[in-house]
Amino acid sequence: MVNYQSPMLDRTFAALADPTRRALLARLDEAESVTISELARPFPVSLPAIMKHLDVLNDAGLIQRTKTGRSVACRLTPAPMEQAMNWLAHYERYWTEQLDRLAAFLENEEWQANPASPSSAASKPRRKKSTKPGRNRSK
Amino acid sequence: MVNYQSPMLDRTFAALADPTRRALLARLDEAESVTISELARPFPVSLPAIMKHLDVLNDAGLIQRTKTGRSVACRLTPAPMEQAMNWLAHYERYWTEQLDRLAAFLENEEWQANPASPSSAASKPRRKKSTKPGRNRSK
Repeated sequence: MVNYQSPMLDRTFAALADPTRRALLARLDEAESVTISELARPFPVSLPAIMKHLDVLNDAGLIQRTKTGRSVACRLTPAPMEQAMNWLAHYERYWTEQLDRLAAFLENEEWQANPASPSSAASKPRRKKSTKPGRNRSK
Repeated sequence: MVNYQSPMLDRTFAALADPTRRALLARLDEAESVTISELARPFPVSLPAIMKHLDVLNDAGLIQRTKTGRSVACRLTPAPMEQAMNWLAHYERYWTEQLDRLAAFLENEEWQANPASPSSAASKPRRKKSTKPGRNRSK
């Protein structure tokens, strides 16, 4: 059963739902620690707007802020992303199964087009090409 | 470089940021197709509230609605989750590296505690135990 009752997951997914916040995380991925003014520089938005985005990332546990004198630096703390990825991994079989079906279909097509070729002989078709309407999902 | 400019990613992460919406997706994962009234039944919220959540999931491309007579059924279309997972996978090295470091540390501890044991002999420590303060991240 998927665990969907998790305020941490709520905050992580909500934090990742904004392109500026994802861009801030990508910048923090490139450097160990970055001051807020350096972080804000490339963005065409005001410093207060960046500060609000950093608040959201901080509340989600995705960044940590450290004050040194008058300067505040941020660093990436990506642990909450692992939980988000584990949640999504539960659905991974849908796209991997789709790829498996595509591979089986292409293998079969190749075998039918050229049954004598060595690669076709090595890879026997697992099933005959169906004439029924395609299923999009198998459970 | 991480692709963070994606309205589809915005919608996917925003849709996943709510526990009721994640629970609706989990229910659709268990059955091929479910009518809206069946879907709404276990939730302690009104039908219009569920309809709004389904709108968000539909706009994100995570479900598909089909009308048959007076009944509307939903089915899961999880393709957008793959892009979200690929985005998160860029950060995966942080937690896998952390696990690797923990494994190396435990291996080393075991070797120091019992250097003559067969398992310790087989698994040579990769480095001496450091006396420096622990690093949290390696680039």
